Amino acid sequence: MATPHPFDPISGAEINIATKLIKDATKGTEKPHFIQMDRLDPPKKDMIKYLAAERANVTPPHISRIVYVYYYIGLIFHKALVNVTYGHIVTDKVLPKGVVGPLMADDVEVVEKLATTHPIVAAEIEKLKLPAFVKVVCDPWIYGKDDPNEDRFLVQCYMYLASAYHPESNHYSLPLKFSPVFNCLTKEFVRMDYLPAGIDGTVTATEAWTEFPFVEYHPDLNGESLRPLKPLIVQQPEGPSFTTEGNNIKWQSWEFRVIPLAREGFAIYDIYFKGRSILYRLSLSEMTVPYGDPRHPSHRKQAFDLGDCGFGVNANSLALGCDCLGIIKYLDFNKCDSTGAPTFSPNTVCLHEQDAGLLYKHVNYRTNVPVVARKREFVVQTIATVANYEYALNVIFNQAGEIKIHVLATGILSTWPIEKDITVPWGTNVGPLVMAANHQHMLSFRIDPAVDGHENSIAYDDVVTMESDPVHNPFNVGFVNERTYVEKAGYIEQSPFTNRSYKIVNENVINPISHQPVAYKIAMPAKQMLLADPKSYNAKRAHFATQQLWVTKYRDHELFAAGEFTNQSETDTGLAVWANGKDDVRNTDQVVWATMGFTHVPRTEDFPVMPVEAHDIAIVPSGFFDRNPALDVPQSNNSFNKSQYYKDPNSLVTASSDSCCKM
Amino acid sequence: MATPHPFDPISGAEINIATKLIKDATKGTEKPHFIQMDRLDPPKKDMIKYLAAERANVTPPHISRIVYVYYYIGLIFHKALVNVTYGHIVTDKVLPKGVVGPLMADDVEVVEKLATTHPIVAAEIEKLKLPAFVKVVCDPWIYGKDDPNEDRFLVQCYMYLASAYHPESNHYSLPLKFSPVFNCLTKEFVRMDYLPAGIDGTVTATEAWTEFPFVEYHPDLNGESLRPLKPLIVQQPEGPSFTTEGNNIKWQSWEFRVIPLAREGFAIYDIYFKGRSILYRLSLSEMTVPYGDPRHPSHRKQAFDLGDCGFGVNANSLALGCDCLGIIKYLDFNKCDSTGAPTFSPNTVCLHEQDAGLLYKHVNYRTNVPVVARKREFVVQTIATVANYEYALNVIFNQAGEIKIHVLATGILSTWPIEKDITVPWGTNVGPLVMAANHQHMLSFRIDPAVDGHENSIAYDDVVTMESDPVHNPFNVGFVNERTYVEKAGYIEQSPFTNRSYKIVNENVINPISHQPVAYKIAMPAKQMLLADPKSYNAKRAHFATQQLWVTKYRDHELFAAGEFTNQSETDTGLAVWANGKDDVRNTDQVVWATMGFTHVPRTEDFPVMPVEAHDIAIVPSGFFDRNPALDVPQSNNSFNKSQYYKDPNSLVTASSDSCCKM
Repeated sequence: MATPHPFDPISGAEINIATKLIKDATKGTEKPHFIQMDRLDPPKKDMIKYLAAERANVTPPHISRIVYVYYYIGLIFHKALVNVTYGHIVTDKVLPKGVVGPLMADDVEVVEKLATTHPIVAAEIEKLKLPAFVKVVCDPWIYGKDDPNEDRFLVQCYMYLASAYHPESNHYSLPLKFSPVFNCLTKEFVRMDYLPAGIDGTVTATEAWTEFPFVEYHPDLNGESLRPLKPLIVQQPEGPSFTTEGNNIKWQSWEFRVIPLAREGFAIYDIYFKGRSILYRLSLSEMTVPYGDPRHPSHRKQAFDLGDCGFGVNANSLALGCDCLGIIKYLDFNKCDSTGAPTFSPNTVCLHEQDAGLLYKHVNYRTNVPVVARKREFVVQTIATVANYEYALNVIFNQAGEIKIHVLATGILSTWPIEKDITVPWGTNVGPLVMAANHQHMLSFRIDPAVDGHENSIAYDDVVTMESDPVHNPFNVGFVNERTYVEKAGYIEQSPFTNRSYKIVNENVINPISHQPVAYKIAMPAKQMLLADPKSYNAKRAHFATQQLWVTKYRDHELFAAGEFTNQSETDTGLAVWANGKDDVRNTDQVVWATMGFTHVPRTEDFPVMPVEAHDIAIVPSGFFDRNPALDVPQSNNSFNKSQYYKDPNSLVTASSDSCCKM
Repeated sequence: MATPHPFDPISGAEINIATKLIKDATKGTEKPHFIQMDRLDPPKKDMIKYLAAERANVTPPHISRIVYVYYYIGLIFHKALVNVTYGHIVTDKVLPKGVVGPLMADDVEVVEKLATTHPIVAAEIEKLKLPAFVKVVCDPWIYGKDDPNEDRFLVQCYMYLASAYHPESNHYSLPLKFSPVFNCLTKEFVRMDYLPAGIDGTVTATEAWTEFPFVEYHPDLNGESLRPLKPLIVQQPEGPSFTTEGNNIKWQSWEFRVIPLAREGFAIYDIYFKGRSILYRLSLSEMTVPYGDPRHPSHRKQAFDLGDCGFGVNANSLALGCDCLGIIKYLDFNKCDSTGAPTFSPNTVCLHEQDAGLLYKHVNYRTNVPVVARKREFVVQTIATVANYEYALNVIFNQAGEIKIHVLATGILSTWPIEKDITVPWGTNVGPLVMAANHQHMLSFRIDPAVDGHENSIAYDDVVTMESDPVHNPFNVGFVNERTYVEKAGYIEQSPFTNRSYKIVNENVINPISHQPVAYKIAMPAKQMLLADPKSYNAKRAHFATQQLWVTKYRDHELFAAGEFTNQSETDTGLAVWANGKDDVRNTDQVVWATMGFTHVPRTEDFPVMPVEAHDIAIVPSGFFDRNPALDVPQSNNSFNKSQYYKDPNSLVTASSDSCCKM
């Protein structure tokens, strides 16, 4: 086996080594119950040397592969670091009481079955007096913190009805009004919660259930006759324009490494364009989804989709011709199961090119000569299913040195029971007897910059109207750009009405044309941030989601915006701690955290499956190059693109456009 | 010749009729000098009856075709309305002194030549002592208002240097420091202006010019060696999924008419989805581009790209395989020249389908069964070249009942001379001796709604945190949606931090699922509006650009946000007048005007040709349908999409992803 690159994803063999070492070390105790493991990022100082050597084509220094392992021995939560290169445990720490690990799929499966078969729940189900064509389904859910004294690892089970006759019947369309809570580790029944379905918090005893107006999304069941649609095929007869070597990708003057990861889905490392360094690492760092229904037990609905479960471990195995078009390169991923055995997850990340319209165009009106290049993009995509919701995370590179973070939200709304003819101000009725509560999706992207090197500064630019002045602004039309540098770790306030934009600046490199320091811009629209009251657990646990842009000093292993352990957490132990107002962040190595937030007031159109809602962050050169870096892209023409004229089937004469374009 | 549909574009024959009638009526005077003509929108009351009859398959009422004609007799500006169905002039009005028509290409061409040959300018050029390989080029420019007593039709000529040896040399890279002003009608030389090129408004006498560091964009000249790029071909072997009948389009449950127009580029009429009315008319109504360099004569740089020249008359003839991929239907357009003769402009609007990624996806994690549909879009596109800049206007329909207005800005920055080693706070040096000033692009889109009929209301929704309350919000997590209806003609303030969204509501139709009135949402990011001081002409002339969303009562012929005549206008005679705070706009026929604004602080990367900058407005159903209206879209699969696996040319073994996906 070849030596892996320090950034490479964890292999099945490495999982086996880590598991064996933990098992050996814990002999004589209860069997270790594995929760998650993955390779740790190498120390940045070492990696900078390693990457420099690699680029200089000299032998890079040795860097050991370290794997982190989350596991339980009984009720005791451990985190071990294991050197899988030399085969020894580096550290093994018992985590403090109250710190809870992420949900592990094997446990979810057990609880899910238990939630319909446990005698107490079975008795409750019995009261529904369901006909044979109806079954009960359970979605185990993250148990949001609401009690400082609660330190058990709990799961809240949301219960639904579905057709018993088709495995794809949409249970989210008929939520039930009771919800058992289980201990995720001991599998003990803890308590039965009841869900209010009226206008207030009043709950009712379970009674016979008589109406079953399922709203189905599966084509077998949804009763729709299909629209005619003709194929649109993307062909790349000469192959794609990218090459891969392991996880290293080269495409259109870009070079970077795409690494599938258990928690983040993937991270992209060591991003270069035209031989110049742009970013050291780019990743989704956390996402929290708090709900706005104020009633018990809905107040506990605040998932942290990365920290509480993991984007990589929940990633779809992507399928050819479904999730993207053209020639697709897939990357695979290895995770562990609860026994520590490796599980191979194929195709969790896909890589492909797409056409994205015009890159630039100009027509000289004197000669009618156009200069026109089409925009080709390179897409890195993963899609995670987190119970009801789907999130597609795309990082998209283009030929002009631009990076776009593009997030698609789709899937099924998390629903709540509602009685007939009732509406509530914190949600929308999306079907008969079913309500979907207002909620927010707050994603934190971690941008570790390396704009022409690792000594960068973060600034924000505002565009402001010049003051009226008979000499300097006699016509009252002037406006100028004003820059402010961030000196200390903290956040930048949103300011859309001054056109505020965030910049990653290298003050040590001056652009010879603009005479300004080189920079990349982070462009994102102004958005509503976290709505939960600062007094709430929702706000305390997700402090990162209260501001759009944060700057912290770089430190190894500060990767996750809400902290390392988010499940049932009491406070944000990430940005709430690191953005301390003290650390110097100017002209040094720092990290930018961008909060992509969207408030979702459900629409009827979002049910039973939601049309994609997309949000973007753009990371684009802004005075980094001395000119448009895409002037070397070949011109667009039809011998290359092979488009065709539409022939009007209704037309008796040849389309007029045909003749004039043959000129 | 078949009777045209009342919405149909003007024909060459109709131009001939109008011209003949005007010429006949003005016999004995100076020859009419034609500026612009196009067919007028039919009265809406009549059209509603017409469209209802059409849908009911009964004979619709007769509606005459009316053409508006702007023309000059000598210095006198006329507007005539001509009935080209019956062949008579309806009205012919002389416009008040000071009202100036749009720029006509024939005049621009004359002035452009004059600006290098007129003896006074030639003498100034002489002083440059240019070598033979350098030529002088002129861009005639709109003359922004700055003097209430000036009522001549003027043109400001910006002068540049370019290589004499190639017709595509980029003259924008070397702007000169003198600028003649001409009378556009009489072609008289009016005055020589001088451009300041230092840090303030100081101007200098013309001297010998010795440095010629051209920054070129044309592939023949830019000195770049081309990147390898492999073809990406869109094939539609069974043809597209749309059908056309004249200008009427049917695609994926949509039906509408796309009409190329002289001023607006195109408008889309009578938009239906799944048999329900959505909009009566959708168009770009105006765009103003004010510049932020406060110095004379830059303060006059405020183009109104529709009213001052016309998006349709400046539209590119789009070329197969350059501007879009796949099977393309083109629409043609007729405009008049200054003699009133029709000029055929082929392919000014293109129509085609494109794939746009996922439409929706859900994977049942219990069975691993995905439900996934890809998003197909239908694009209506026009691209206008307004001297240096290009704008692509796309209106994009998708299968989920959503409409997206998508604007691409590209082309070349309008530039200004700057001396060596000087920088200024109101612009960016984008090449040697060349500066590009800060500016704004403020576009107004006119949305004439017909959501389930013509009696609509406009509302805005805010999402707000619930007050802390031991009974109603005991956990401090609640948030609710609050709606406010607009009662009177006016504007809605932007409010991104309450997630404000604009709604077109039909209060007379209740959604049976949500129990709320049906609605469409207008979604657009919060943006900086017009920066010019309210005292300035820039602000007075473009009042529409001071707010993001306006509502006015519907009246025929109120189509253009800044008023009908914008060239050298003194004030906004559009929204500044119509949004009067008096007209009732609730539950009646009203119009929404959405300002898409972007402040452009030029980057070095934007020169010599600018990578596309895109901005969007989404118009999406929001409680209009009772469920996702795209459940009838066929599922995505590879027998339809024919994607392929990437074969790693470097890999010695078969890619692991290959084997696992054959399962």
